[in-house]
Amino acid sequence: MKVFIAGIDGYLGWALAQYLTARGHEVAGTDRYLRRQWVEEVGSVSAIPIYSMEERLAAFRDHFGKELQFREGDLLDYPFLRSYLEDFQPDAIVHLAEMPSAPYSMMDQAHAVGTHTNNVNGSLNVLWAMREVCPNAHLVKLGTMGEYGTPNVDIPEGFFEIEYRGRKDRMTFPRNPGSFYHLTKVHDTHNTIFACRIWGLSATDIMQGVVFGTQIDEMGDDPRLRSRLDFDQCFGTAINRFACQAVIGHPLTVYGVGHQKRGFLPMRDSMQCLTIAIENPPKQGEYRVFNQFEECYTVTELAEKVREAGTAVGLDVEIEHFDNPRTEKEEHYYNPDRQHLLDLGYKPTHDVVAEVKIMLKDLIPHRERIMEKREILVPDIRWDGTRRRSNVLTASPVNS
Amino acid sequence: MKVFIAGIDGYLGWALAQYLTARGHEVAGTDRYLRRQWVEEVGSVSAIPIYSMEERLAAFRDHFGKELQFREGDLLDYPFLRSYLEDFQPDAIVHLAEMPSAPYSMMDQAHAVGTHTNNVNGSLNVLWAMREVCPNAHLVKLGTMGEYGTPNVDIPEGFFEIEYRGRKDRMTFPRNPGSFYHLTKVHDTHNTIFACRIWGLSATDIMQGVVFGTQIDEMGDDPRLRSRLDFDQCFGTAINRFACQAVIGHPLTVYGVGHQKRGFLPMRDSMQCLTIAIENPPKQGEYRVFNQFEECYTVTELAEKVREAGTAVGLDVEIEHFDNPRTEKEEHYYNPDRQHLLDLGYKPTHDVVAEVKIMLKDLIPHRERIMEKREILVPDIRWDGTRRRSNVLTASPVNS
Repeated sequence: MKVFIAGIDGYLGWALAQYLTARGHEVAGTDRYLRRQWVEEVGSVSAIPIYSMEERLAAFRDHFGKELQFREGDLLDYPFLRSYLEDFQPDAIVHLAEMPSAPYSMMDQAHAVGTHTNNVNGSLNVLWAMREVCPNAHLVKLGTMGEYGTPNVDIPEGFFEIEYRGRKDRMTFPRNPGSFYHLTKVHDTHNTIFACRIWGLSATDIMQGVVFGTQIDEMGDDPRLRSRLDFDQCFGTAINRFACQAVIGHPLTVYGVGHQKRGFLPMRDSMQCLTIAIENPPKQGEYRVFNQFEECYTVTELAEKVREAGTAVGLDVEIEHFDNPRTEKEEHYYNPDRQHLLDLGYKPTHDVVAEVKIMLKDLIPHRERIMEKREILVPDIRWDGTRRRSNVLTASPVNS
Repeated sequence: MKVFIAGIDGYLGWALAQYLTARGHEVAGTDRYLRRQWVEEVGSVSAIPIYSMEERLAAFRDHFGKELQFREGDLLDYPFLRSYLEDFQPDAIVHLAEMPSAPYSMMDQAHAVGTHTNNVNGSLNVLWAMREVCPNAHLVKLGTMGEYGTPNVDIPEGFFEIEYRGRKDRMTFPRNPGSFYHLTKVHDTHNTIFACRIWGLSATDIMQGVVFGTQIDEMGDDPRLRSRLDFDQCFGTAINRFACQAVIGHPLTVYGVGHQKRGFLPMRDSMQCLTIAIENPPKQGEYRVFNQFEECYTVTELAEKVREAGTAVGLDVEIEHFDNPRTEKEEHYYNPDRQHLLDLGYKPTHDVVAEVKIMLKDLIPHRERIMEKREILVPDIRWDGTRRRSNVLTASPVNS
């Protein structure tokens, strides 16, 4: 199949290009390198060194024996996007080109509005371009499990049948997200549902859990094929951040009591699931939702798993609780479905500790890079719109 | 109370400034005259002549014996908005500064994206400015009944208690809007809920029905105090459009079978309701929803009422059905609540025919202005992204 990846220079995009190519698909992509700029803006760097797109494309050629089609550009540049899609005529469009950080979107007015413009308008442009030049393509759109928030009822996949005052309907499951970033994904969801209904486009909206991991098998030993791995408060997701902290002996930074429960999945599961979605498209005009995660864990459970993996590879890992910079429930019900992917053959990894051991081994050679940025490991972007570095909470009652 | 009106040059904004001032409130406002530009862009004009803001402000002074505070500016200009709110320190902010047309937003990619930027980012700026300079102000935000769409169950006011798989929660009522314009209001709704939850802002989100009418009593006989009245396919709402068609003998343009049911209210009811919201603020940190309409009618029922009012003032009114340019259900269940405003003392008008008679008398002197634009009375912006003028449908089976 011909697959177009928007955001092909990113954490998932670069891995997916290799995964799909190894499976025989024809891949084209675009990026404007904003992720590189954003991470630099927040004073950080990828723990795993990454290469320029020129070097990446050369490595791709060496490794896979074919060219990766690439054009630098921005989804906000509609003529660029439209003509690229018109030329390539994809079977599937994987949209990974959104700004993915909750704290980054919460920093101030400019970052909240910038996130909306980049994410919502960029996604709208994808929908319009599909309508105009490739209406039969299948959009695989990256949403987030965070769109749902933490309701007191089970979380279905996108829609639910309800009875209300004696009448019935099938409705969009209500969204209650926890940051402006997550809100932009909710807006995308509503816009995509509408575009499918009105124009007959087809889309799979992936409500993805938190991804972790440093590699997939297809990357082999070539450092130029590795994906970025962030560990700052904005772009470093929970396990990735913990793994980087573990290798330099910094305490793992659990926010609050750490009973917040979320869906997580290794990068290799994300590749598997996205490919299942691509290779099993919905019918024309259908909008479907996949909740995509391996399993639900509390943040504390994950920190414990990182400690366990750390011990196995000879690291001494400490866990500390910090006052939570986010406004979120720290104790809550959480029971999301994820049946759609299982029905299509998804085999969850089910061994987080083994995956984290691989991560730690990948990260240990890059200790110095992380050490240099150790002052940014404790978060300071607060949900009340202020900046203040979190303090360590005393884990047990103080007796003095 | 000190009331700030964003969009004070508009159809509702200009009327509200007068209504609130007559009740003793202190009003300040802003506008960038985009509505005037948009109507010109779609080749139309206000049926009721409107005056420059300079002339409007002079009339205001003459009529109410005080200055209306006004600064020209755009909600997208954050420093402007922030400093104006910081200086004025409003008790309430009425946000009427969004692009309000479904067809305008559906025209093409540029209009869909422009609507998102103007509406969603402008509203986000209001929320951020409130947090930064007037966190105790009460936001009265204009949403639309169109956010809900036409579900097969009753429509509560914003939220509902549900039971799902044996557990209960109070959730946002799912939104299923019918255009990119309506979608921007849904996005605003989610953003506003979040800002109230995270920052403790207070907001009344008005899910308003379709407003009609040419005047409120406070405008008296001074033509400079009249609001605009649009009749084009984009900015002319159903009854306003019908009334303008009636005075020039053009058939009323009902879309499809005309059984689409919506909530409607006269401009004087809208003023009454908005003022009830302003004068009865929610408690700090509360987000509440008012469904705001006088009654629900089908489009055909309203066309019949316009015909009845027309006959009473000596007009010969014809009704014709046109193939529907929109993708929408023409037969559907529709039963929205509107108890919150009734509980606070809202007295609905309940005499649409009397109100339409006033409209027709106001519009007859301006026949020539409407006649000049008669070629734009039949819609051509279609929901499938194309342009084609609608044809008259044969109302009864053809026997030839």
